[in-house]
Amino acid sequence: MLRELEREFDRSLDRYLDEWRELLAFPSVSTDPAYAGACRECAAWLTGHLAGMGFEAQLLPTPSLPVVWAQRAGDPSAPVVLLYGHYDVQPVDPLEEWRSPPFVPELRNGRMYARGAQDNKGQLFYALKAIQTLAERDLLRATVKILVEGEEECGSSGLAGSLSAWRDRLKAEVLMVTDTGTVAPGTGTIVMGLRGIIHLTAVLRGPQHDLHSGVHGGRAPNPAQGMAQLVTSLYTAEGRVAVKGFYDAVEPPTLRERELAARIPFDSAAYVASTGVPPVAGEPEFTPVERVGFRPSLDINGLHSGFGGPGSKTIIPAQALVKMTARLVPRQDPQSCLQAIIRHLQAHTPPGLRLEVVEQGVGGPALRLDPEVPLVAQARKVLEEITRREVVLLWEGASIPIVSRLAEVAGAQPLLIGFGCDEDRAHAPNESFSLSQFRQGYLYVASMLAHLQAQAHTAGSRRG
Amino acid sequence: MLRELEREFDRSLDRYLDEWRELLAFPSVSTDPAYAGACRECAAWLTGHLAGMGFEAQLLPTPSLPVVWAQRAGDPSAPVVLLYGHYDVQPVDPLEEWRSPPFVPELRNGRMYARGAQDNKGQLFYALKAIQTLAERDLLRATVKILVEGEEECGSSGLAGSLSAWRDRLKAEVLMVTDTGTVAPGTGTIVMGLRGIIHLTAVLRGPQHDLHSGVHGGRAPNPAQGMAQLVTSLYTAEGRVAVKGFYDAVEPPTLRERELAARIPFDSAAYVASTGVPPVAGEPEFTPVERVGFRPSLDINGLHSGFGGPGSKTIIPAQALVKMTARLVPRQDPQSCLQAIIRHLQAHTPPGLRLEVVEQGVGGPALRLDPEVPLVAQARKVLEEITRREVVLLWEGASIPIVSRLAEVAGAQPLLIGFGCDEDRAHAPNESFSLSQFRQGYLYVASMLAHLQAQAHTAGSRRG
Repeated sequence: MLRELEREFDRSLDRYLDEWRELLAFPSVSTDPAYAGACRECAAWLTGHLAGMGFEAQLLPTPSLPVVWAQRAGDPSAPVVLLYGHYDVQPVDPLEEWRSPPFVPELRNGRMYARGAQDNKGQLFYALKAIQTLAERDLLRATVKILVEGEEECGSSGLAGSLSAWRDRLKAEVLMVTDTGTVAPGTGTIVMGLRGIIHLTAVLRGPQHDLHSGVHGGRAPNPAQGMAQLVTSLYTAEGRVAVKGFYDAVEPPTLRERELAARIPFDSAAYVASTGVPPVAGEPEFTPVERVGFRPSLDINGLHSGFGGPGSKTIIPAQALVKMTARLVPRQDPQSCLQAIIRHLQAHTPPGLRLEVVEQGVGGPALRLDPEVPLVAQARKVLEEITRREVVLLWEGASIPIVSRLAEVAGAQPLLIGFGCDEDRAHAPNESFSLSQFRQGYLYVASMLAHLQAQAHTAGSRRG
Repeated sequence: MLRELEREFDRSLDRYLDEWRELLAFPSVSTDPAYAGACRECAAWLTGHLAGMGFEAQLLPTPSLPVVWAQRAGDPSAPVVLLYGHYDVQPVDPLEEWRSPPFVPELRNGRMYARGAQDNKGQLFYALKAIQTLAERDLLRATVKILVEGEEECGSSGLAGSLSAWRDRLKAEVLMVTDTGTVAPGTGTIVMGLRGIIHLTAVLRGPQHDLHSGVHGGRAPNPAQGMAQLVTSLYTAEGRVAVKGFYDAVEPPTLRERELAARIPFDSAAYVASTGVPPVAGEPEFTPVERVGFRPSLDINGLHSGFGGPGSKTIIPAQALVKMTARLVPRQDPQSCLQAIIRHLQAHTPPGLRLEVVEQGVGGPALRLDPEVPLVAQARKVLEEITRREVVLLWEGASIPIVSRLAEVAGAQPLLIGFGCDEDRAHAPNESFSLSQFRQGYLYVASMLAHLQAQAHTAGSRRG
């Protein structure tokens, strides 16, 4: 089967490249309203392309940008697979750093250069071509649903707001997401977990206006100093989060998870070289990989008060602002954690100052796969067959809020396997995607669907 | 004597007003290089005016704006008095809020409206007219030196840099400064102390660039959080400064000072109404008046790190900046205090982060008068005769660094008595000065000089 797929890919590559170039030519920058028209044209193109693949395809309107929806009914005994992707891309600034125009795709040295070449138009397109190959060869027995949103790069508000209305439509057994990366080119990587996320902006108010620090220093309470105390109170000296109840629902990684996590490559010296800091924050009883993969964190994203220019301005600032996000793990309820943090801030507000929470929000809960479920074992097998290397199971510290929520609403097991690499420079100038990773992605999606069908068939036969 | 001075003032007022208007018409804004020409013209006008008063007058160049210098030798047995003032003024923005143009002086309802009407051209001019009156009536036996700088509103750098070179020229027994205010119109107020000031800007550096808080949260040390800890470490839970050695040289106020300070009006409810905060900061064992008048403080003027805009930006900031000033009391050496703070910051820098002090400076040391010295008693008597009210002795929390340094270099006892009021709106649009306060200032300077001469004469007679 794999040989055949490889041959099919190599035979069809020229056509794939032509079509892919058409998709990449749309400047579908979702954050900039000036490109709303281009986004809609891109969505319409995709709908037509999916219809041409034999799918029932349509544009689902949202209050913002439309979602592309396509469906192809399969064998009732075969599994239902939902593929998630996005047709929007990041802005292109700084434009002058691009070697070729971002929306004029150019193939150089085995890499396609364009904005979105990898994120997500490239990773979406290999998935579509893999599905098409199976369909055209009459090998697609699964029911495949395809959802391509246009606002992943700016908060997914249209899709998020429609999820509950689309609950029936979205029902699936497996949610395939190809928007993730590999630890290295050619190495298969299964994302086993994502952290959830909540965010909060608070202002600590003091004087009506900035006060003269000579006349009031050592008398009027200082919001900058008060905010420093408030932020400090959020942590223990050992690096844990000091918010009451924050860890209540958190369970430590299992022995099996710790064992698997220990295989994820992590080199402290390389970490220092790439970030400029040693990985010394957080709970000392966990490894740096575990801290990010299995433990929640509370991160200060911004802190602003008073004067910041050159020289000296002798004031007691009128207020201080803090922006923070927390990364959550499974069983932590985002809303409860947010409220616990707010209660902590209120309880620790220094005398004479007034706390106001000016912004708060829940991105989404965490997502975690059990390494023992058959789906992971299957994916592993598929990837090892394609890459001929050991597969890495990766617990990510980052969040893809819409994926957690989509998996929940669809009632599907998420399967996050993508082929992006650091060298692709997603979000940066000269984004590109190598044809070899594109090819591996194609082979993975097609093989994985075939395996899922075979699995279900075997299980179905046994049941029958 | 006082009656005679009052009559002379009333008789000469029209001439004083005409001359004062000429002085106020110069837009001598020192902070804006566009007005450097106007500053020099103002200085030249003043030099001419002082020469016309019978003084040896000249412009002393500095690397920046010139200093006006004038001198009139007196009786060798009489005291040498140095008068300090400044001819520069604050910028006028927002211009649209002025009822009459800031450099077209206008007399309305007994108040002169113009930028500098009070600060310091008004308070300088009544002093000059008082000295002129004594001189013209052959009543001036003291040697009077007059120093009018042009950079008080922007750091006094020209004068500060010249002080040691002018040491001989500046020698005096009393340094008269009329650049201060009264606690209420018509109430004589003697400033008994000023706090010294030092300033510091430090940056806490972490990652080479902002890091993704999902990928690195709970692993990479966070400079915003680290800075909060660092700032918090500067204070004890009770509100004292926790920097080792900071209080070593500090002496508490004497019983007499505490007794006198208790007479300074302070109303907590009024404080809350005017500032928006209760006076709860600082050391609880001292009253709010004492904390500002007799105790040092360490004040955070600014704190900046990471994202401050609307919404959420999920970063671990690359760095955090803090700006702070400390207000010092007598015996605290500014340079030693600055170094103690820097040592504290270095010793408390959290692991994985690097501290850099990017700016530091010494404004000047504190200044304090002993309430028992004869000069204070004389000034009190003079003021009570003029105002017919009890005089307030005021320990200010603010700093006038150049005055402390000038007193030191001149070897003179400082005498800080001025007649500015809150209602004058110094530094704000529609600055003005009432003719009644202008008149009291004139009477004070003339009477005070007369008293100093009489005192010296008596002492001289006794000595002889």
